[in-house]
Amino acid sequence: MTARKIPVSILGATGTVGQKFVRLLADHPWLEIGAVAASSASAGRRYGDVVRWREAVPLPDRVAELTIGQCAPPLEGAIVFSALDAEVAGPIEQAFARAGAHVVSNTRTHRMEADVPLLIPEANADHLALLEPQRQNRGWPGAILTNPNCSTAALALALAPLHRAFGIERLFVSTMQAVSGAGYPGVASLDIVGNVIPHIEGEEEKIERECRKILGVLKNGAVEPAEFAVSAHTNRVAVIEGHLETISVGFRSKVLPEDAAAVLRDFRAPPCVADLPSTPARAIEVESRPDRPQPRLDLERGGGMTVTVGRIRPCPILDLRMVILGHNTVRGAAGQAVQIAELLVAEGRVERAR
Amino acid sequence: MTARKIPVSILGATGTVGQKFVRLLADHPWLEIGAVAASSASAGRRYGDVVRWREAVPLPDRVAELTIGQCAPPLEGAIVFSALDAEVAGPIEQAFARAGAHVVSNTRTHRMEADVPLLIPEANADHLALLEPQRQNRGWPGAILTNPNCSTAALALALAPLHRAFGIERLFVSTMQAVSGAGYPGVASLDIVGNVIPHIEGEEEKIERECRKILGVLKNGAVEPAEFAVSAHTNRVAVIEGHLETISVGFRSKVLPEDAAAVLRDFRAPPCVADLPSTPARAIEVESRPDRPQPRLDLERGGGMTVTVGRIRPCPILDLRMVILGHNTVRGAAGQAVQIAELLVAEGRVERAR
Amino acid sequence: MTARKIPVSILGATGTVGQKFVRLLADHPWLEIGAVAASSASAGRRYGDVVRWREAVPLPDRVAELTIGQCAPPLEGAIVFSALDAEVAGPIEQAFARAGAHVVSNTRTHRMEADVPLLIPEANADHLALLEPQRQNRGWPGAILTNPNCSTAALALALAPLHRAFGIERLFVSTMQAVSGAGYPGVASLDIVGNVIPHIEGEEEKIERECRKILGVLKNGAVEPAEFAVSAHTNRVAVIEGHLETISVGFRSKVLPEDAAAVLRDFRAPPCVADLPSTPARAIEVESRPDRPQPRLDLERGGGMTVTVGRIRPCPILDLRMVILGHNTVRGAAGQAVQIAELLVAEGRVERAR
Amino acid sequence: MTARKIPVSILGATGTVGQKFVRLLADHPWLEIGAVAASSASAGRRYGDVVRWREAVPLPDRVAELTIGQCAPPLEGAIVFSALDAEVAGPIEQAFARAGAHVVSNTRTHRMEADVPLLIPEANADHLALLEPQRQNRGWPGAILTNPNCSTAALALALAPLHRAFGIERLFVSTMQAVSGAGYPGVASLDIVGNVIPHIEGEEEKIERECRKILGVLKNGAVEPAEFAVSAHTNRVAVIEGHLETISVGFRSKVLPEDAAAVLRDFRAPPCVADLPSTPARAIEVESRPDRPQPRLDLERGGGMTVTVGRIRPCPILDLRMVILGHNTVRGAAGQAVQIAELLVAEGRVERAR
Repeated sequence: MTARKIPVSILGATGTVGQKFVRLLADHPWLEIGAVAASSASAGRRYGDVVRWREAVPLPDRVAELTIGQCAPPLEGAIVFSALDAEVAGPIEQAFARAGAHVVSNTRTHRMEADVPLLIPEANADHLALLEPQRQNRGWPGAILTNPNCSTAALALALAPLHRAFGIERLFVSTMQAVSGAGYPGVASLDIVGNVIPHIEGEEEKIERECRKILGVLKNGAVEPAEFAVSAHTNRVAVIEGHLETISVGFRSKVLPEDAAAVLRDFRAPPCVADLPSTPARAIEVESRPDRPQPRLDLERGGGMTVTVGRIRPCPILDLRMVILGHNTVRGAAGQAVQIAELLVAEGRVERAR
Repeated sequence: MTARKIPVSILGATGTVGQKFVRLLADHPWLEIGAVAASSASAGRRYGDVVRWREAVPLPDRVAELTIGQCAPPLEGAIVFSALDAEVAGPIEQAFARAGAHVVSNTRTHRMEADVPLLIPEANADHLALLEPQRQNRGWPGAILTNPNCSTAALALALAPLHRAFGIERLFVSTMQAVSGAGYPGVASLDIVGNVIPHIEGEEEKIERECRKILGVLKNGAVEPAEFAVSAHTNRVAVIEGHLETISVGFRSKVLPEDAAAVLRDFRAPPCVADLPSTPARAIEVESRPDRPQPRLDLERGGGMTVTVGRIRPCPILDLRMVILGHNTVRGAAGQAVQIAELLVAEGRVERAR
Repeated sequence: MTARKIPVSILGATGTVGQKFVRLLADHPWLEIGAVAASSASAGRRYGDVVRWREAVPLPDRVAELTIGQCAPPLEGAIVFSALDAEVAGPIEQAFARAGAHVVSNTRTHRMEADVPLLIPEANADHLALLEPQRQNRGWPGAILTNPNCSTAALALALAPLHRAFGIERLFVSTMQAVSGAGYPGVASLDIVGNVIPHIEGEEEKIERECRKILGVLKNGAVEPAEFAVSAHTNRVAVIEGHLETISVGFRSKVLPEDAAAVLRDFRAPPCVADLPSTPARAIEVESRPDRPQPRLDLERGGGMTVTVGRIRPCPILDLRMVILGHNTVRGAAGQAVQIAELLVAEGRVERAR
Repeated sequence: MTARKIPVSILGATGTVGQKFVRLLADHPWLEIGAVAASSASAGRRYGDVVRWREAVPLPDRVAELTIGQCAPPLEGAIVFSALDAEVAGPIEQAFARAGAHVVSNTRTHRMEADVPLLIPEANADHLALLEPQRQNRGWPGAILTNPNCSTAALALALAPLHRAFGIERLFVSTMQAVSGAGYPGVASLDIVGNVIPHIEGEEEKIERECRKILGVLKNGAVEPAEFAVSAHTNRVAVIEGHLETISVGFRSKVLPEDAAAVLRDFRAPPCVADLPSTPARAIEVESRPDRPQPRLDLERGGGMTVTVGRIRPCPILDLRMVILGHNTVRGAAGQAVQIAELLVAEGRVERAR
């Protein structure tokens, strides 16, 4: 296409998620990286000299040459991706919204605020409507939008069609999460090689809260959280990328495995989402092989944006058991954020470049 | 001690569990290896020439020199440990019982039969009383006793005091199991390095069935299974030894984490079990550090016979969540079987050597 | 392109290398899979039902539907790829050559025979001329061609321009090889998780022999092996794909690191090879970052056909030390074989389909 | 024994090597931990509250209760173990020597100084004589002694009897080193799970230098380094503990594998070393199984103080190839330092407690 691309900025561009943003935006059809920003210690230096590039494809030359900017407005572009640490993200993201930018944040800071959408476009694109009350409440021309925590993203997407069809009442989830979810350097190898760590700080609470907001319904300019109970166990395993989650789920009335599988197979993104560049042909893939999904074999479906559900079978206590796999740094982080930005463009909330 | 030791035999002595038997019995105060037996292909050859020894301590010279026998009576010793494959174990174990031996089996074949005890001595030593109806029913002078599946052993032991104190009603468990649980060669490295496999053939059913038998009560010469529902997910992870299990559990009435922790801390083996050589000082250890237990750090407690319970905390749906770690080839296999044999000796069911 | 593709057959199509052939040929511009063959136990069954597909992309539907054939001529196509076990490959490959096929074999069986080319097209495409004496000697209308052992392929390719420029005299190599090099199930996870195995059966001899043949020169219709001494250590590590090799190398006269780097950077495939579909833009990439190449980060260069050389530095004893990384199942196996087949087509030795 | 033990102090007691000191000294027959010291940030706090204990045995209660001291004299005890970072070790270790203590250091800082012994007691206990010139040169009543870098320790010990018997001329070594060698947090899991890193900062130079000093001879109150050339490659692999090293070695005259094996098997520690508590029954064990030694199976020999040598075979270029395994945090760090301290006591250089 001959149209010019929309410039975007990346905050926290040198970290693990920041690098994934760089990778995903390198050849994006609509967006292009206009600026990268990081901590003051890095600002003013060449991105290629500072970043400890951990992606398995080469760092694009054009980005390597960018000079790292300060994490403060103005930065080029109406869309700003935030991969900042939660400790510092709050005031910075707000400053950009105040300066008129649409901030798409991967950070937990604003996720649970009433007027901030927590988005998985295939599941709740309508929550975008929170931006109007947000602007009124905050009195800023820009906006803050968030994507879910990495283990919640795959879970809530897989549950969305089931909740809509059958109404979830109770959910048990036990996760086995990849080390990339902890950033870099993140988990020490001495802690995880040949081992499992049955604890991820703050993660269980995030799953329990965020799932219910994502699957909630818009009512009077606010999200009414889905009314089901969630009990989560989170574990770290020696996997590089891909969170695997086992769940037991109970619905308002009895649901058979074949009915759930059919609902998942028939799930389609809403029209406003289906044609976004990052939306995969199928957001949810159902596996019938008994030992699948597995991170090593099933993670890259849909460029990492497809969630795979397998082993759908009866539960001796609730209705169903199943296994869910999602790509934690794509669907669970940067890929999800890029898709949200695409939705902003497609919906005309950010002006397309000409 | 000057007393002679009791000779025992090991069936399936060349496999992973068979090797663990050899290791645990190498310096046993009461028992000594009298014979090793394996498949016909190996029979007649020197044990040290056939076994692909995978233990991290040297193979004892005396055992290396033994000639491998056929898996058929007679073999030396009144106690026979069986580490046979389930495909062949049935008739062989029965033949030994018919020939007068006490067969302590690690194989699933006879576990769920009504007159066969499924034993974790600290939890249900009284189930030994099933041997009398077994002898009557079967008309054999020997006996068959079994220890639980590896993931069930740690789970049922940790639950035993809680069930006795509070009455379990519902149990969700999701496991992360070591590759040694699958024997040798077992899991291919191509399948598990940097990966998780969310499926272990037949394992979920074993957990669901065996837990209830172990925690059941003796009534009229039979076990009445505990009446609670179990829902299990089983997963294989890249760990050499140590099964980690996350559970959510509901009781007949509300139970607080501190009450459960107190019950677990106060748990003591019954007197007939407490002084057995393989019984650890504490069968259950409670961890208060938030990221424990972990296979790499907590597995060797009590020589692998201690189960560690951590992260005891409320569950948003049932009463409690917690994490359980057990040594799958010691408490979950050979160590448990040796302890059962010791119980037979201590109870006078097998004559002590003089 | 409108031309019909050339049908090819794959022998041993269900194994690890067989699967890589299926993957690489799925969308090949010149070739298409006409038949898959495997052991008698699998023959007659649907490929998709038999194969335990281990690639991280879906098995192509068209191939899944193929009925597995016997490993005996005739099979469709003038080119036959052999991923057979060395134990059975000899007579089968010869039968196909006798029946007129060009057999491109990944098996060691014929590699060292005097009239069989052992090919890395960028390095020794001229060795293809061995096919003429081969036909005369053997009296068959077809031909047998081979690609090197997986650890040799990367090594010999990286050394080729250095040998040509400076003349190798002595070579020490110590490898760290991925588990995929051992096929499936191959290395047991109990043997390699958290471990290293300092031994790969027969591998050191292969490196020592094959390197010298590949880098040898054609003389009077035979290859005169390169006259340098090779000492190899081979080790297995817990990596899925990618062989890493550290080498110390001495030349006829003193060579500086910068001279070697320049020769490697300037290396280009000969014209007859440069435009083959599988030939990467650069067969050899030189890394200057001090901790590279690494399997996880550098393996996929050139679709797995590029070898990466790093840490080129002086050696206290010989001239240079360096580190070489190659993709063991692409450059070291199926990808290399496919490139050889492409060369046969480009050279007009196999008729292009019309 | 009824005699009181000798109190010792540990500098850098909270790190990985510091923890190994705590573990090894917990039940030591001669020595007992009198004080633990660490950075100012930790000083004044309870050891058990500060240390992130990573050993697989419980932290001894008595040590947990110790208050962490400053890394400055005076600290209890005539022997001070230093596990300090090289960045800070120099002045601190010197201050303790000036204050009269015998400092046994695991840090590289003083290793290569002419009057500082670099010790592997079985190999060069006579180098202890450097302490006299050291005292004269430095004018201090105490002393500084060092143990080698972790990968050098195993290598130099295995080479010592060979060098003495045959005279080494050239040595190529390529290592595969465990992550515990990098301390905690050390190597990021994102960098090493399923991967190999072909670089360890400064390690190759250490091996090349230290080996020659250790195997050198005392002459006129100084060490004359062994005159052989060393070329090293160092690599990091996903192993928790245990450095594996492949070597090719050339001697002054031809040496056959069986001769080298005999020399290694016959090697015995000198009498002054043989009875030290940490000296293993055999400092060097020779393995004849073709795929050994391996970290997982052979590391714990001699409590981690035994080095295992395997695959002794001819080298196509030099005389011999072999594989060496050593425990990097025991023989390669804390265990070696404790043994050196024992030697000081046994030699009467530090007064035995009464």
